[in-house]
Amino acid sequence: MAAQSPATSGVSTSPIAADNPGVIDLFAVLAYGEISAFYRLAEEAKLSPTLRGKVAVAKMATAEMAHFQTLETALAECGVDVFDAMAPFVRALDAYHASTDPSTWLESMVKFYVGDGIAADFYTEIAGALDPAVATVVRDVLAETSHSEFVVEEVRRAVTTSRSERDRLTLWGRRLLGEAITQAQYVMAQRDELAELVLTATGDLNGIAALFERMQDSHAQRMAVLGL
Amino acid sequence: MAAQSPATSGVSTSPIAADNPGVIDLFAVLAYGEISAFYRLAEEAKLSPTLRGKVAVAKMATAEMAHFQTLETALAECGVDVFDAMAPFVRALDAYHASTDPSTWLESMVKFYVGDGIAADFYTEIAGALDPAVATVVRDVLAETSHSEFVVEEVRRAVTTSRSERDRLTLWGRRLLGEAITQAQYVMAQRDELAELVLTATGDLNGIAALFERMQDSHAQRMAVLGL
Repeated sequence: MAAQSPATSGVSTSPIAADNPGVIDLFAVLAYGEISAFYRLAEEAKLSPTLRGKVAVAKMATAEMAHFQTLETALAECGVDVFDAMAPFVRALDAYHASTDPSTWLESMVKFYVGDGIAADFYTEIAGALDPAVATVVRDVLAETSHSEFVVEEVRRAVTTSRSERDRLTLWGRRLLGEAITQAQYVMAQRDELAELVLTATGDLNGIAALFERMQDSHAQRMAVLGL
Repeated sequence: MAAQSPATSGVSTSPIAADNPGVIDLFAVLAYGEISAFYRLAEEAKLSPTLRGKVAVAKMATAEMAHFQTLETALAECGVDVFDAMAPFVRALDAYHASTDPSTWLESMVKFYVGDGIAADFYTEIAGALDPAVATVVRDVLAETSHSEFVVEEVRRAVTTSRSERDRLTLWGRRLLGEAITQAQYVMAQRDELAELVLTATGDLNGIAALFERMQDSHAQRMAVLGL
């Protein structure tokens, strides 16, 4: 893939067309991300000490499925079956979740909040370079849910009262970012069309590097919101 | 509780008022039923041999949560916290699920279809005797979802090709009905206000017996739809 001429803004100026082959990949990786998140949340809700916590998590999981359905529809409109499209991304996303399997309720909450944030940062930046119709789908499925307020309160309360909990969750957050970047790079290396789309969206390789730096800054801010 | 004078139709003629204390119990047991179903489905989806099956189950689980939210709102409008209201029903519903824990994907699918049907039969009959505003909430949360078509296809295909699978699932379906009735009776014995509401709705003790007979007939019809 040829590097684009660097744009001063860090993104290319004309939007990436809706029929760019990378768009299918983008929708597909988002869709499998939603399904994975649904099942992870449902599974991790078992760690909740209260029924209230379980219900809050069930609502978050439900929001992920609504996003999945948006992507399934968007892919169907492109004449693509969502299951066929998702297949290439199963391995990397499953690997991310397997390598960041929470062992406590708080780890699970931090993973939900931080993982969702990392993904949203990445896709929001890409969306800025996409055809408006495509960008709308991407932004819809990334829409912040009010449920994350629940997470912030739970985590802040726990880390305020326990220094060791705070230290442990700080390391956990760092690991989440590392694993997310590792798997994102793996996906890019495997999927030329998606990699091409990301390169076009960010301008060039320097643009990608700058994007990852901005993502690290946002990650640090999110950790601060959690009191970490 | 005094038996009502038997109504020839099997139900009392004037609707049960919205502020009948049994209505809170009715909404609460339905709400905990939805939450339990959500987590059971999410858990049992692991048994699915395909991603397509997992997604179908995730969609069913999502529909259960939408129903939960309807009930949470209805209870809030009565000034009742859904978590407080659900507490008395946790034991019986958890016991039902623990005693009918599916060991295969097909058992899970039959449980979803048959269990949902048994509950719907019971609540629909009760709804017929309720104040229209209350009845609307009950019917909304029982609304048949198109997803059960998926279950019917999966089960019919399996039992057509395997006689032993059919025999096993037939016994399984019978056990589901038995356990559901056992737990329903336990709930009635514990919750006077709900028992009173059901008595009023069905007319008298004979009315309850007739209701259970109709439920057994519907159950047999549902099993036939599944090829069992």
